[in-house]
Amino acid sequence: MELPIAPVGRIIKNAGATRVSSDAEKALEKALDEKGTEIILNAIRHAKDSGRKDVNANDMTHAIHYNNCNITNVNGQK
Amino acid sequence: MELPIAPVGRIIKNAGATRVSSDAEKALEKALDEKGTEIILNAIRHAKDSGRKDVNANDMTHAIHYNNCNITNVNGQK
Repeated sequence: MELPIAPVGRIIKNAGATRVSSDAEKALEKALDEKGTEIILNAIRHAKDSGRKDVNANDMTHAIHYNNCNITNVNGQK
Repeated sequence: MELPIAPVGRIIKNAGATRVSSDAEKALEKALDEKGTEIILNAIRHAKDSGRKDVNANDMTHAIHYNNCNITNVNGQK
């Protein structure tokens, strides 16, 4: 796993949770790590489909939406 | 945003991507940050529904699956 536990703990605190078990924190860390891998693999595929080796923000935004992450894009739009 | 960029960059490298723009990295960081918030909010709700204030690994695993993260749970099972 690549993500450090401290910032994951901050995400948890920011969301208003005060009492979260260590196992629960680790589960979230693992989920985000795996979700990140899933997204980048889709972004790489999207770049390849466009005939590029470079992964740009557009590939990543596409992959994020493809992976059901309902987030704002790099321009701040949903 | 809470997640530092370096470990997000390592997730990207581990997935085999070599050339990824800085904007694309930031977009992934943002997506994981927001996905993490979404998951913990669901985990908190799950704990409350069970009459608890403490968020445990079970709440988190439930929330992860609810949020379409197809990951292994804390016991290593899909």
